[in-house]
Amino acid sequence: MRVSRRSLLAGVASAPATLAFPGLVPAAWSSEADTAEDGAAAATTQVPGIQRFSVGDIKVTAVLDGFFDFQFDWVIGMDEVEAQRLLADAFLPADRLRAAVNAYVIHSGDRTILVDSGTRDAFGPTLGRLLQNLAAAGVDPASIDTVLVTHMHPDHINGIVTAEGVAAFPNAELVVQEAEWAYWTAEETLSNAPDDFKLFVQLAQAAVKPYEGRVRLIATDMEVAPGVSAMALPGHTPGHTGYLVESGGDALLVWGDTVHLPMFHFAHPDWTVIFDGDPRAAAATRSRTFDMAAAERLKVAGMHLQFPGLGHVIRDGAAYGFVPAGWEYEL
Amino acid sequence: MRVSRRSLLAGVASAPATLAFPGLVPAAWSSEADTAEDGAAAATTQVPGIQRFSVGDIKVTAVLDGFFDFQFDWVIGMDEVEAQRLLADAFLPADRLRAAVNAYVIHSGDRTILVDSGTRDAFGPTLGRLLQNLAAAGVDPASIDTVLVTHMHPDHINGIVTAEGVAAFPNAELVVQEAEWAYWTAEETLSNAPDDFKLFVQLAQAAVKPYEGRVRLIATDMEVAPGVSAMALPGHTPGHTGYLVESGGDALLVWGDTVHLPMFHFAHPDWTVIFDGDPRAAAATRSRTFDMAAAERLKVAGMHLQFPGLGHVIRDGAAYGFVPAGWEYEL
Repeated sequence: MRVSRRSLLAGVASAPATLAFPGLVPAAWSSEADTAEDGAAAATTQVPGIQRFSVGDIKVTAVLDGFFDFQFDWVIGMDEVEAQRLLADAFLPADRLRAAVNAYVIHSGDRTILVDSGTRDAFGPTLGRLLQNLAAAGVDPASIDTVLVTHMHPDHINGIVTAEGVAAFPNAELVVQEAEWAYWTAEETLSNAPDDFKLFVQLAQAAVKPYEGRVRLIATDMEVAPGVSAMALPGHTPGHTGYLVESGGDALLVWGDTVHLPMFHFAHPDWTVIFDGDPRAAAATRSRTFDMAAAERLKVAGMHLQFPGLGHVIRDGAAYGFVPAGWEYEL
Repeated sequence: MRVSRRSLLAGVASAPATLAFPGLVPAAWSSEADTAEDGAAAATTQVPGIQRFSVGDIKVTAVLDGFFDFQFDWVIGMDEVEAQRLLADAFLPADRLRAAVNAYVIHSGDRTILVDSGTRDAFGPTLGRLLQNLAAAGVDPASIDTVLVTHMHPDHINGIVTAEGVAAFPNAELVVQEAEWAYWTAEETLSNAPDDFKLFVQLAQAAVKPYEGRVRLIATDMEVAPGVSAMALPGHTPGHTGYLVESGGDALLVWGDTVHLPMFHFAHPDWTVIFDGDPRAAAATRSRTFDMAAAERLKVAGMHLQFPGLGHVIRDGAAYGFVPAGWEYEL
């Protein structure tokens, strides 16, 4: 059964800076626990969501913004029996589809490049921790010189701006693929949008405003920063873009939203989600990207893969699998 | 080809507090980098090796002591072609066998229980970070009331004592399985030990000395702390012991050295390592433990599994596989 975006956004406040997906935030979750400092209290909270990886001479820091829970009826084409089998095989709870929201910092020479920026406060208190986790990683927002955007959905772009409408990364150039930019900033996208979609467009337009005069539009298949090139991965949005990091014969594809639900999408790349702008193209891009990553033994990183979200795609019969990258003891 | 322990310890200094396995420490590794604080420098070092998991109401903190590299000829029964296939399948380098040294803190009610203690300085600068990582996790060594020992090898017990011979955990009771204790503390174990093994015995005897008067010897199949019971896993050493944590219908077996080399042992539980006291019994215990963990869908944690070392064992045809536990966003 397909649920419209309207029903998801039922009850949303009119302020474009706050979305509230019903059921998205677990009732028991408390954001206060995170500030606990003493041992006994700290033991009840997770440690900061940061982890590092090497790509040749380039270092990458995975930074967690938080998590949200998909509802089962946000998945299109899903077989419920198969879904339960996959959850059990992955030792995951049967009653929820938890997805990370990750961002990545690419440390390339003297450059500090952020890929995506999380949600800020758009999706409630289980998210919006990007700045806190950047601080835990020792990364000053003012040191970020470039923000690469995979696409302009609010869980990727809302974190570039503060609640006060100021740039969260005051010294960063904002890099967006040209078709993605054209779509989200067009006046007619907003005026033609169904009511339940207007908030997405308004959030995107509000987020980029403080970057006026320092936006760089890019094509794909070109280098966009030292060691980083853009790769077209259209379907989820018109200009959905991956970023390929290459150094010393090693490579990592930061593939944005190529996968929303890792427990399902490697086994069933044809299952889509209601957030896909063009579901058929999104599924085709997913299969093509899996094929390429598996054939080239390419390391991948994904915004909704389980944190830290790095690993390798493998072929598994007619479908695919995912081998998470392990902890790197030394970089 | 089997290499004797003597050849491993060739050139070891006579001081029992320092072992030096040739080839164990990568030449490029520097312990200084870890103290870097600013963003650019910090990006070249990994974040603190700490991560948390829930077992019902009990919380567990995985704490990394560091890593060491096995040499290929420390593995007995290994087929080299098969070994290379397994390394490639796991997207691991072909020329090294890197193993974590993990410890675990069990936060059970108002109790703070440490399982194993890492190496201190026994194996060089890629290890010995337990206290540093405990501090990063907000766990004061003085708050640890119990140290559970899986076995008395130096990479598990040397961390309970400082270089000055003082208890690293001043308020902790030391809990050791009775056969394990009897073996390592017996005068004849030292006097009968081949020269290349004497250092292991001396280190074990030196480590427990400051705990005199607060050692508790245990049998297996009994509760040893709130929510924690001991399980006999003999073979690697005479009294090698696992600790089963149970709460609210959830369970975690901290299985010590049931696995040394995860890239090999799930596929080939019959391959052993030169550190196994009774290789045949160690292999039999491994298969039996895999069978139990897979049948009961039991979560396991291992001292040499890739950090943080938690996951589930699955059957994979005639052999086994391992599904690493993912990041827990909330505890």
